[in-house]
Amino acid sequence: MIIINREKSVQRPLDTLGQAIDSPVLIKLKGDREFRGILKSFDLHINLVLDDAEELENGEILRRLGTVLIRGDNIVYISP
Amino acid sequence: MIIINREKSVQRPLDTLGQAIDSPVLIKLKGDREFRGILKSFDLHINLVLDDAEELENGEILRRLGTVLIRGDNIVYISP
Amino acid sequence: MIIINREKSVQRPLDTLGQAIDSPVLIKLKGDREFRGILKSFDLHINLVLDDAEELENGEILRRLGTVLIRGDNIVYISP
Amino acid sequence: MIIINREKSVQRPLDTLGQAIDSPVLIKLKGDREFRGILKSFDLHINLVLDDAEELENGEILRRLGTVLIRGDNIVYISP
Amino acid sequence: MIIINREKSVQRPLDTLGQAIDSPVLIKLKGDREFRGILKSFDLHINLVLDDAEELENGEILRRLGTVLIRGDNIVYISP
Amino acid sequence: MIIINREKSVQRPLDTLGQAIDSPVLIKLKGDREFRGILKSFDLHINLVLDDAEELENGEILRRLGTVLIRGDNIVYISP
Amino acid sequence: MIIINREKSVQRPLDTLGQAIDSPVLIKLKGDREFRGILKSFDLHINLVLDDAEELENGEILRRLGTVLIRGDNIVYISP
Repeated sequence: MIIINREKSVQRPLDTLGQAIDSPVLIKLKGDREFRGILKSFDLHINLVLDDAEELENGEILRRLGTVLIRGDNIVYISP
Repeated sequence: MIIINREKSVQRPLDTLGQAIDSPVLIKLKGDREFRGILKSFDLHINLVLDDAEELENGEILRRLGTVLIRGDNIVYISP
Repeated sequence: MIIINREKSVQRPLDTLGQAIDSPVLIKLKGDREFRGILKSFDLHINLVLDDAEELENGEILRRLGTVLIRGDNIVYISP
Repeated sequence: MIIINREKSVQRPLDTLGQAIDSPVLIKLKGDREFRGILKSFDLHINLVLDDAEELENGEILRRLGTVLIRGDNIVYISP
Repeated sequence: MIIINREKSVQRPLDTLGQAIDSPVLIKLKGDREFRGILKSFDLHINLVLDDAEELENGEILRRLGTVLIRGDNIVYISP
Repeated sequence: MIIINREKSVQRPLDTLGQAIDSPVLIKLKGDREFRGILKSFDLHINLVLDDAEELENGEILRRLGTVLIRGDNIVYISP
Repeated sequence: MIIINREKSVQRPLDTLGQAIDSPVLIKLKGDREFRGILKSFDLHINLVLDDAEELENGEILRRLGTVLIRGDNIVYISP
């Protein structure tokens, strides 16, 4: 219903995520859970897959998860 | 409205889940409930079915459930 | 936007639910409320109807409800 | 995207609700609020209208509301 | 996907709301906030507008708001 | 699926909002945060923009924000 | 289902966001987390990307994040 002209030069947030593929990212979840890992894939719901993923609490490693799929609706922010 | 070119070589998060079918997975739910089991099926909402499922709390088995369907909106992450 | 090839041999989570019709199931709701009963029907939102339903708390019967329709968005898991 | 063959003999949860029209029902809401009344109508979101409705707490009548429209997303279960 | 035959004689919840236009209603919100006022309009999300609206707490007037638009997703029930 | 005849003489809630453009409004958010400002625009999700916006707590000014876009899903009510 | 005539002279909330591209913005999230940074992009869900982003608590810098993608459903308000 709202149409936004999307010129090729305009980046969208998911483009930024696309550029971070195969790079390390920091993921903050609701309730302050945190993950670090290599971003392998994502979809339009911002579901995403990390490799070499670590779950953190207060900056300390809580658990090493290897590959993990995080459901997008839990995510607060992603920092490449 | 956003179109992502999906070349055959690009994986998406649900592809990772597809590769985990018939393998053991760890599921973390909102509120820290945890499940281990064999992933049997899933759908686009990430509703999924586990076989030989165990519900865990602080790493200890709370309940053996056999087959269980977990509603996707409760899921924080899935680790194959 | 994401198309999953759905061969006839592939089960989906709701198929598992379909096979549990007329059988006893255990339902866990958000906030730890629990139900046992005979699964009579369900829909795509996982709204479902139980017969001979009992509401449980800490494994004890809180209330016998006979027939009950449970709204799907409250459900954490269903175990046939 | 998922098509369920819906033979005429298969009931769905909203059919159960349809059969309860003009009959007394018990409604449990999130946060344990409870209503009793005569079910007059409902829609696909399980918004529903009760007549002769009473709001209950711990089994005691808190308030007599006459006609009340309850928004479906608050509902945990409905027992005819 | 679910089709409900909607005969002209069948009322739906929003029809009940339509009949309450220009009449006093009681609105209960999530978190127990309460409003009284004259229902002026509503839409399919049950967003609604009241005139001569009062916000209540424990039955006492907290604030007189005149005209107020209440966003539907906050509403627990509406009693004409 | 539900069709409401919308005669030209029938107002809907967003029409009330449209009439408040360029006028002062009071916005109550979930969690009791409050804003006052001049309503400049809104959309179908009730995302809205205020000018000369002030954030209030217990009736006292917490912060002057100038222009602010408030995401609609946080809003409880809007009073022109 | 609701059609709003959208004359070219009418601004919508996302137009205001579009004018803030490449400018500093203040973002308030649910649960009082706050961010400052340069707005680089956004989409229809108000997912957005900041550069030179800082996470704040009680006005003090908690963390410097560089580039960050914030998921729109966490956002309370954005002030350019």
